Amino acid sequence: MQEFVDFSKELARASGEVIMRYFRRDISVETKADDSPVTIADRQAEEIMRELIMKAYPEHGIIGEEFGNHNEDAEYQWVLDPIDGTKSFVSGTFLFGTLIGLMKDGQPIVGAIHHPVTSHLLVGDGEEARLNDEVVCVRDTRSLRDAVMLYTDFIHVGQYQNGIAFQQLMGMTSFNRTWGDCHGYFLLATGYADIMLDPIMHLWDIVALIPIIEGAGGKITAWNGGPPLSGNGVIASNRHLHSQVLRVLIA
Amino acid sequence: MQEFVDFSKELARASGEVIMRYFRRDISVETKADDSPVTIADRQAEEIMRELIMKAYPEHGIIGEEFGNHNEDAEYQWVLDPIDGTKSFVSGTFLFGTLIGLMKDGQPIVGAIHHPVTSHLLVGDGEEARLNDEVVCVRDTRSLRDAVMLYTDFIHVGQYQNGIAFQQLMGMTSFNRTWGDCHGYFLLATGYADIMLDPIMHLWDIVALIPIIEGAGGKITAWNGGPPLSGNGVIASNRHLHSQVLRVLIA
Repeated sequence: MQEFVDFSKELARASGEVIMRYFRRDISVETKADDSPVTIADRQAEEIMRELIMKAYPEHGIIGEEFGNHNEDAEYQWVLDPIDGTKSFVSGTFLFGTLIGLMKDGQPIVGAIHHPVTSHLLVGDGEEARLNDEVVCVRDTRSLRDAVMLYTDFIHVGQYQNGIAFQQLMGMTSFNRTWGDCHGYFLLATGYADIMLDPIMHLWDIVALIPIIEGAGGKITAWNGGPPLSGNGVIASNRHLHSQVLRVLIA
Repeated sequence: MQEFVDFSKELARASGEVIMRYFRRDISVETKADDSPVTIADRQAEEIMRELIMKAYPEHGIIGEEFGNHNEDAEYQWVLDPIDGTKSFVSGTFLFGTLIGLMKDGQPIVGAIHHPVTSHLLVGDGEEARLNDEVVCVRDTRSLRDAVMLYTDFIHVGQYQNGIAFQQLMGMTSFNRTWGDCHGYFLLATGYADIMLDPIMHLWDIVALIPIIEGAGGKITAWNGGPPLSGNGVIASNRHLHSQVLRVLIA
């Protein structure tokens, strides 16, 4: 396991170097078929990670946001989102990151969130989570009214989930912000926020998060409380708050 | 003028060094009489700036968020918010900053926004704005549907302004985020966002912003279109969008 944790850090460093060449530079933004944005930085960052994986582990599979699947039947599958939060990236803000996950037989076993602008590298293996090599964990907030609630986008929640229940939850928490995409999970796992919600998730958005949130002592499920890989959004929080959040959202 | 621009950079560097000693460290958070949070980092960062100003310009006045007024009748007044976005700071995210403004006879003439986590230092004098010494300006977005709209907090808009009109504007823009406090003005002035809104502002939040936004070619007014120092919130954008925003917000 430690071998893969170390290798995910290598991938983070290599992709981060590529991304920072383009951050806050004049680059063009294309719109993909699913209406999400993509840039040369997303593509080159995924390419460098794919090259490194194929060289180190030619028998492993790869699932990437920008370039699809490779070795689909392999026991180990690397799951890559080179820039999670491309809208943040092209808006020149600091909250986007790179997601690197590893599955064995379909189960997430290693995850990394890397913020290249600030060199924060958070890695989890389901048992433990470390930020730049120091152990971190979720904080102990017990009550919704003391909780900091994060999410990625307000406008689209109602398209995928119960938007009214979501707004109720907003009003029940201490404060809430769209410090979303991977940054919300980063703040939760390192003990600086309490609830992070996404009404819809792709596989490449979520595999890396599971070993990190669980390694930091938190709980991560789908929006309905089911298994997080089901694709039906994500609720992540500490173990005290999770059932309280679920009760409001699926009321 | 250049002398004061240079001196504001010196203040930013000195306060940034203090702030970074406490960022993502275990420090206590107190709640002030106005219900806003404050930490040792806010206080020490303001103290070091006050010391530097009193040494360099003993005849100038100072207005600071944490320690009040000094030399209130002076021609020149430095206006300091050591940590604009204390909630961001104590939440371990990267978007807070230091605001340093200078007024002459009540008119803002120099402003600085400093993001100590990433060493982005943006300075304006009403004629020009520079980010780490490179000239920057607002971008040329002409239509609300292409505009990125930023604000600090969703929940409280309706307490101070027309919350319904605000939600209408949210739905008319390309996307919107709470990348707020000084960071929203930073993204606007450097050409990475289009509209930044605050429904309520204190003097120490706003003086620094005016020479930056105007120096970058943008427009900044109160929420009703009046003078920005009136305290009735802020609308900031490029010159094309400002009248369109105003029309929606005060419909």
